[in-house]
Amino acid sequence: MSQLRVTVWNEGIHESTKDPAGMPEYYPNGIHGAIATGIGEHLPDATVRTALLSYPEHGLTETVLEATDVLLWWGHKAHAQVDDEVVEQVRRHVLGGMGLLVLHSGHFSKIFTRLLGTTCSLSWRNAAEREVLWTVDPTHPIADGIPNPVVIPEQETYGEFFDIPTPDELVFISSFTGGEVFRSGATFRRGRGRIFYFSPGDERYPVYNQPEIQRILANGIRWVAQPGLPRTIPTVSNPSRDWFRTQD
Amino acid sequence: MSQLRVTVWNEGIHESTKDPAGMPEYYPNGIHGAIATGIGEHLPDATVRTALLSYPEHGLTETVLEATDVLLWWGHKAHAQVDDEVVEQVRRHVLGGMGLLVLHSGHFSKIFTRLLGTTCSLSWRNAAEREVLWTVDPTHPIADGIPNPVVIPEQETYGEFFDIPTPDELVFISSFTGGEVFRSGATFRRGRGRIFYFSPGDERYPVYNQPEIQRILANGIRWVAQPGLPRTIPTVSNPSRDWFRTQD
Amino acid sequence: MSQLRVTVWNEGIHESTKDPAGMPEYYPNGIHGAIATGIGEHLPDATVRTALLSYPEHGLTETVLEATDVLLWWGHKAHAQVDDEVVEQVRRHVLGGMGLLVLHSGHFSKIFTRLLGTTCSLSWRNAAEREVLWTVDPTHPIADGIPNPVVIPEQETYGEFFDIPTPDELVFISSFTGGEVFRSGATFRRGRGRIFYFSPGDERYPVYNQPEIQRILANGIRWVAQPGLPRTIPTVSNPSRDWFRTQD
Amino acid sequence: MSQLRVTVWNEGIHESTKDPAGMPEYYPNGIHGAIATGIGEHLPDATVRTALLSYPEHGLTETVLEATDVLLWWGHKAHAQVDDEVVEQVRRHVLGGMGLLVLHSGHFSKIFTRLLGTTCSLSWRNAAEREVLWTVDPTHPIADGIPNPVVIPEQETYGEFFDIPTPDELVFISSFTGGEVFRSGATFRRGRGRIFYFSPGDERYPVYNQPEIQRILANGIRWVAQPGLPRTIPTVSNPSRDWFRTQD
Repeated sequence: MSQLRVTVWNEGIHESTKDPAGMPEYYPNGIHGAIATGIGEHLPDATVRTALLSYPEHGLTETVLEATDVLLWWGHKAHAQVDDEVVEQVRRHVLGGMGLLVLHSGHFSKIFTRLLGTTCSLSWRNAAEREVLWTVDPTHPIADGIPNPVVIPEQETYGEFFDIPTPDELVFISSFTGGEVFRSGATFRRGRGRIFYFSPGDERYPVYNQPEIQRILANGIRWVAQPGLPRTIPTVSNPSRDWFRTQD
Repeated sequence: MSQLRVTVWNEGIHESTKDPAGMPEYYPNGIHGAIATGIGEHLPDATVRTALLSYPEHGLTETVLEATDVLLWWGHKAHAQVDDEVVEQVRRHVLGGMGLLVLHSGHFSKIFTRLLGTTCSLSWRNAAEREVLWTVDPTHPIADGIPNPVVIPEQETYGEFFDIPTPDELVFISSFTGGEVFRSGATFRRGRGRIFYFSPGDERYPVYNQPEIQRILANGIRWVAQPGLPRTIPTVSNPSRDWFRTQD
Repeated sequence: MSQLRVTVWNEGIHESTKDPAGMPEYYPNGIHGAIATGIGEHLPDATVRTALLSYPEHGLTETVLEATDVLLWWGHKAHAQVDDEVVEQVRRHVLGGMGLLVLHSGHFSKIFTRLLGTTCSLSWRNAAEREVLWTVDPTHPIADGIPNPVVIPEQETYGEFFDIPTPDELVFISSFTGGEVFRSGATFRRGRGRIFYFSPGDERYPVYNQPEIQRILANGIRWVAQPGLPRTIPTVSNPSRDWFRTQD
Repeated sequence: MSQLRVTVWNEGIHESTKDPAGMPEYYPNGIHGAIATGIGEHLPDATVRTALLSYPEHGLTETVLEATDVLLWWGHKAHAQVDDEVVEQVRRHVLGGMGLLVLHSGHFSKIFTRLLGTTCSLSWRNAAEREVLWTVDPTHPIADGIPNPVVIPEQETYGEFFDIPTPDELVFISSFTGGEVFRSGATFRRGRGRIFYFSPGDERYPVYNQPEIQRILANGIRWVAQPGLPRTIPTVSNPSRDWFRTQD
């Protein structure tokens, strides 16, 4: 298997503002650093780079996107600061075949709401509750090797109604101590690209250090990646002629 | 709107064996009687009849099926005693356009597993736990007027993995005190018929007396019913010629 | 049944440019006029208004949208001229519960691509070929009373691959003389709204005068309309709190 | 990649009755032989065996099924002669994780209708018409390397309505000279198993000798195969306890 090229994007606001104050204890290299470390342990064939909002073009230049098989997106406080042109360029790469993993509060990111078309709103509250994550599609590759259930000792509570289009595949459903349920792992195909949304992971709890969660991210990366697929990016001027040309 | 003809089927074993002993307190007319009463209160245009396993042909003769727009199925202890020929005749009516509501432990009934093709197995345990039922498709007609969530104070615990084909529509997801989640309300189209599976409702707890649950059953009946549709029953000898003739 | 309030939107360019020259013969009142006439004949309980690109705010003011249960969209030459703010306001009404029918070349409209997230590109060529439209979901309300197949003597040829998300329901598939196939009738749920895309209908052929096509449009309007549903429009500042409040 | 163990099942009636008389010219080793040859050319890591209706237990003993990753099913004249116990045993293996490809007239086989629950009827006629097969899911692994469209010079005409549950994925749609359309390639997940139905292929036309068709079959085998998945067969006596134990 050839190298899998992964880019982990983080807005980096919790890191730069040192809020929450305790985060460096469990995420000494930031949220993106923790995610990247977990991927490295579970995907030895992956090369992982990270990118931040503060980088030029948020670190998502055309050169980077062309060299990215799978992009992970973590954002929370700064969705509005993400440049619309970068979002559009990312969207075009996803439609052209790049895999996308959207994490936790990334449900409100411009790239996710732009690709899905809905508000992607949900209910939330934070009470350090236990999340229990259940597999409802046990032979899906993303669930491979994942115990059923996975218990996350403390996590922000997300709840339905989650305003998304009906997923192509529903892989995980979570419950929380307060009784909420949430469709916590779902896949979507858009254009030539694959998308996996996965809700666990918050700046206040060391969820990305948990091996089962790392394994799910690794499985998700493997599933959205299509390394043999030529990237075919739609053009603005003539989307229908240039678009699925490789199929014609 | 013309009369909606509803048949509530119950195996009637908990009633005949007086097990659980306390059931007559909350279901004095049996499980089928409680369901029928609830339907009558929420669907004034419905005529409701009941049928039991102990009746000739289990009360599901060709005459009854022809005069049934929607059949509700409650079974638990006696799935194996249901005659295969009756099951096949019910299946043919569903494929021909009769609506079907499968309730609670009816997930293991012959008619449900025969129509879905899978084992329809699930996890269960009984600890009188609180079930919290959430709407995940808020504009679905079956969710009309239903508060989100509905709390059921005590109920048997059902849990994933629920071995069903991917539902055509997922309407409700439940959580339980112990942390389990369950796809508790789901629809399936099979042939010309519509099916709604709804899991709340157990012989040990007065769930069918709860107004929100009654309203969901009423909505479900309305949704699976196709009163204007000519019943077109496939024949054994020539399914393809006789089958969708009304479309041809 | 209360009045159904329908707005037929047309860019109106083929009318204003008198191209094709022969169009006034079969569409003397424009494409929107023909559509509106057909709706009136099949939906006696509907009040139908029309709106054009050239109107202030394209005729889609907040007042009009609030008083619209179902919006039909016909566009072809002037997608780029539709104001982004109007598109966003229409989108918010759809997400809040307004029904939307997107017709023919409207597949490339801003409102459709914005709601679906993909390019919505397809293959096309024009050779006045016969389109044969088949029902693949015969008990869907949109197919009610529709012969199988419907033959359209002359029509522009649309072909796969049609770059849309997997539809929630696929109702019609068409073939063309040249051998092309096309998913010509498909439904999508987005937020609280329902969308029906229907491809037959072109400025060069009198497709909207054909009674079966009119009946499909009428069925589609009935299906996407949710007249009893309170319109709940997401706000920019706080989408998640104001959004599904009626469910909470 | 480890060996992929494939079993090609054929009822063998067209071979034994020498009807059609010309079949030995294009299928000298029978339909099963042609299919097996094509697989061998496109899947060098596969070991292919064949089995016929006339074998003891139709060649589908427990030993064979345990050693089969993917079963292909070709039947036409003798569906009723297939033993119900064998069908049930095959079904249990599919639910336990064995892949299944159902071919052409196998839509009416006991195994397919038993797994899907519907009649699986369709329209058909035979006029040696051209079938044009289009990919509607161009990045699906089953479509990998397949030209769009594939033209089959002569084939039996299959047409909608095809009475199947909504497929999990629709990969191919075909048109025919007479104007019919047909959902000719569709996937279904049932239990732990994957199913691919593919309609081209008839005893009167050498469809299985066509390289693109062979490639689709090879892709389909690869897609339904789950070689690393432990086979977990549901038991009759206690389906829910023994069933998804490996996930618990």
